[in-house]
Amino acid sequence: MPKKIIENSENYQPGLSIDCVIFGFHDNQLKVLLIKTPFDEKWSLPGGFIPIEEDIDTAAVTVLKERTGMQGIFLRQFATFGRVKRNDLDFGNAVLDHYDISREDGKWFTQRFITIGYYALIDFLKAVPQKENSQEIIEWIDHKEVPELILDHREILDKALNTLRIELNLMPVGYNLLPEKFTIPQLQKLYETILDRKLDRRNFLRKITNIGILNKLDEKKSNVAHKAPNLYTFDTDKYKEVLKNGLNQGW
Amino acid sequence: MPKKIIENSENYQPGLSIDCVIFGFHDNQLKVLLIKTPFDEKWSLPGGFIPIEEDIDTAAVTVLKERTGMQGIFLRQFATFGRVKRNDLDFGNAVLDHYDISREDGKWFTQRFITIGYYALIDFLKAVPQKENSQEIIEWIDHKEVPELILDHREILDKALNTLRIELNLMPVGYNLLPEKFTIPQLQKLYETILDRKLDRRNFLRKITNIGILNKLDEKKSNVAHKAPNLYTFDTDKYKEVLKNGLNQGW
Repeated sequence: MPKKIIENSENYQPGLSIDCVIFGFHDNQLKVLLIKTPFDEKWSLPGGFIPIEEDIDTAAVTVLKERTGMQGIFLRQFATFGRVKRNDLDFGNAVLDHYDISREDGKWFTQRFITIGYYALIDFLKAVPQKENSQEIIEWIDHKEVPELILDHREILDKALNTLRIELNLMPVGYNLLPEKFTIPQLQKLYETILDRKLDRRNFLRKITNIGILNKLDEKKSNVAHKAPNLYTFDTDKYKEVLKNGLNQGW
Repeated sequence: MPKKIIENSENYQPGLSIDCVIFGFHDNQLKVLLIKTPFDEKWSLPGGFIPIEEDIDTAAVTVLKERTGMQGIFLRQFATFGRVKRNDLDFGNAVLDHYDISREDGKWFTQRFITIGYYALIDFLKAVPQKENSQEIIEWIDHKEVPELILDHREILDKALNTLRIELNLMPVGYNLLPEKFTIPQLQKLYETILDRKLDRRNFLRKITNIGILNKLDEKKSNVAHKAPNLYTFDTDKYKEVLKNGLNQGW
């Protein structure tokens, strides 16, 4: 991809890229989609450039779709990273050398780049990670076992995780990440996995019930030894409403 | 300023600008610093461009300092705006015509621009609004009486205000905006002004006390008819700590 872009650089917004922190949840594991390119020993976040004729949000949707095959998914811009020194000329030159592009022809690629960060949260079993070429590795890596990343990608990842944790206070999470029918302990585990800490069972039940996005079913979870827990579904209308307006638990 | 920048455009990041939503609070009024340039009938947010050799956050600090004379102030990046159609060629051309710059020489200025939004919250009585030139008007305007704005500046302003309101749930506010010694009703009024709604007195007292950033003084407000309210100061160490780590009132 970089070669095609460098050769058509006039069609892309100069000095501006997109990086996506794609979190994947399943069965109490929180992973991040990472790529190892042939240009560097370090791993990197999936990213892309912004076509002159495309909204930045659309360009982010494209990255997510190309890398996971998924669309219509929770995807949010969270911060723009623009320290002068975040660019690394060594990395840029390694890419140019790999494609046998001269430093002069590749000037567009080695200019100062500022990057807009987006994050997504999806079920990693539903995604099909896509390589851009055969020399690339793309993999779901546990968020606690992330190897060294290129440039400032570690900072971008940390900021995304921090934002996700803060936004748990502002919006509901769980839709598309849990089975259609789930128990409160399953939902609590999702929150605990993202926050990386234990939550009090009663407090959680009270708070999550107060939001008003859950439908309690007349069914209980089967195949459970004794005291089968109740099953719930999300009330999707209310869920969307709260997603739009925020939890508003504040002042 | 635009003329100087257009003539030295190689020193600035292409296609990327900064816009600052500078909120000013004093005596239960929330205002926004707006500019009326000679290029357009509409008002605009103060903004600027990003020197190639400068971090984006530093460029934002520069805008705030040049426009208000204030530094070291609460200033936060909140979103980046990048719809394709946010640029308005008519506006760009009006600027070029004003400075008598040809469309060809001014191409840097009329390219597609994406803008990074920052917001600040300051005491408007402490700020000295600065014009860039004699043909410009710069003014504090009540946030409920904002006139029509250029480009997508209304959207940027609305998003900033919405972010500020959400962030009231995540961080303390008030330092530098209230007298050194203040009463709980004064602090509550600040919150009510930003949120644009009444808050329950007891709830507010309980929540604000729980945060642990207030020192209750052994003094009462004087010149008050009867039942003089207690005076408080911020515990600046705890205030800074909470500002750094968030209110953490969540799960």
